[in-house]
Amino acid sequence: MTHQQIRGVYSAATTPLNADNTPDLGLFTGHCQRLLKEGCHGVALLGTTGEANSFSSAERRQILEAALKSGLSGDQLMPGTGVAAIPETIELTRHALSVGVSRVVMLPPFYYKGVSDDGLFAAYAQIIETIADDRLRVVLYHIPQVSGVPLTLPLIGRLIKAFPHTVVGIKDSAGDFANMQALVTAFPGFSVLAGADPLLLPLIKAGGAGCITATSNLVADSLRIVYDHANDQARAADVEAAQVRINAYRSLSNSYVQIPTIKAMVGLKTGIASWARPRPPLMALSAAEHADLATKFAQLP
Amino acid sequence: MTHQQIRGVYSAATTPLNADNTPDLGLFTGHCQRLLKEGCHGVALLGTTGEANSFSSAERRQILEAALKSGLSGDQLMPGTGVAAIPETIELTRHALSVGVSRVVMLPPFYYKGVSDDGLFAAYAQIIETIADDRLRVVLYHIPQVSGVPLTLPLIGRLIKAFPHTVVGIKDSAGDFANMQALVTAFPGFSVLAGADPLLLPLIKAGGAGCITATSNLVADSLRIVYDHANDQARAADVEAAQVRINAYRSLSNSYVQIPTIKAMVGLKTGIASWARPRPPLMALSAAEHADLATKFAQLP
Repeated sequence: MTHQQIRGVYSAATTPLNADNTPDLGLFTGHCQRLLKEGCHGVALLGTTGEANSFSSAERRQILEAALKSGLSGDQLMPGTGVAAIPETIELTRHALSVGVSRVVMLPPFYYKGVSDDGLFAAYAQIIETIADDRLRVVLYHIPQVSGVPLTLPLIGRLIKAFPHTVVGIKDSAGDFANMQALVTAFPGFSVLAGADPLLLPLIKAGGAGCITATSNLVADSLRIVYDHANDQARAADVEAAQVRINAYRSLSNSYVQIPTIKAMVGLKTGIASWARPRPPLMALSAAEHADLATKFAQLP
Repeated sequence: MTHQQIRGVYSAATTPLNADNTPDLGLFTGHCQRLLKEGCHGVALLGTTGEANSFSSAERRQILEAALKSGLSGDQLMPGTGVAAIPETIELTRHALSVGVSRVVMLPPFYYKGVSDDGLFAAYAQIIETIADDRLRVVLYHIPQVSGVPLTLPLIGRLIKAFPHTVVGIKDSAGDFANMQALVTAFPGFSVLAGADPLLLPLIKAGGAGCITATSNLVADSLRIVYDHANDQARAADVEAAQVRINAYRSLSNSYVQIPTIKAMVGLKTGIASWARPRPPLMALSAAEHADLATKFAQLP
């Protein structure tokens, strides 16, 4: 297999908030440090789970800079920089590069739906050509159930061909394993990263590169076991136990609206209740939901 | 009927671009002037047709300021200010107020899908309460086929009740006349504005307030005839002829992707070819499409 530039377990880190809805930078950077300690290769901050598109460009820059200031290296960070307007995607990506972060996860422009592959190619091309920085590494972001804008195989192929040193991977969060397999087969050396935790194991066995997932906020250690030993028969029992744990956490996180539920679970794990706050339009769990979640959380493996 | 604060024919003005994809401010402001001369009560700039979400916040402020500088009054302008991140919606809305524009069309935060009415209420409430300006008048924006985030009747009712002086209308672009009728019936005095040109006539007859539409970029005069005389039997023939013309333009604009097609048609109407440029992810019509459009455009009533 050709060399994949981006490999490993990346956490789609959630972003805690202060009581006034501003990002709680201290709690966030401590969380990032813990994720690395628990086994993550890096932190994919400011993604869908991180509520990135609910933050202003200024807040996004502030969050990334806080992570660097807290001691994480640029190589350990992979922020989301794709927004609806191309000039702001360019600005956020340039900012990341300016502070030593060269790998970004990039949504397509997501306001208009049903746009053509030509239009999406033109958008990514304009972003990459305007930035014109050899250091830049782009992980495409396929999450059609949220963005409303799927990235097709022909489009991805065109982007890899046009920008082989820049377009190096994809986060596939559609939850369709067949699509991930097709990507691995079609584009050797391209980093296919699972966006859904339970699919890390089959994806690694199929030649994929790793994951960027939400449940890693809770079970990074188990994801790391799966990543490291997926193909190691001697560790099959450990991998199976890790997979059971990943699936249990993932399943519980889907009991209610996923992102607030993940945040509430991080609150239960750490004992810090303020974790449970999301920013509108997402809403915190109700008291009854939270009580039910706490009971079930205590029973997780 | 209770007094509707916003009434009339508003154009969802398209935004022309220079060759480098920046907004062509001179062409845009001239277009706005012409729209008023042709019969529009005002210009609803920076909406979906105006590609607002493809422009940065800085570009949006620049476009609004250019319209004012060209001589349009604050009362004649109704910009879109709703983006995915609440702090930036607040910033754009405050900017509008700061330059004398008090009426804005506001999308809900549109990245997350399937969000609750509670979450959308909290988002709008946070925006309105943070801005805390008695002058503000908000037109909600219901365009689920693009935003992916529908605004339900119960949500709209809660917003009107909580902010009766501020939440004064809705642009309903879903194309479902039954929903517009339900809004008119449920909320007397609330300005229901059609987002689809052919529905202005039945909406005015049903007690609606007017329209904010794309085809007004081409046939504002006909929309004004419909608006002024919808209930005037003596002008029935004029209204019918206007409606035929509106429908013909609207129908042709749907031959290809609508926004680039509207832009190409404005180019054909004015003889200025650069109108045809959209910003990615939207793409200009192909040469063959444009030739076909030009032939059909020449045959319009």
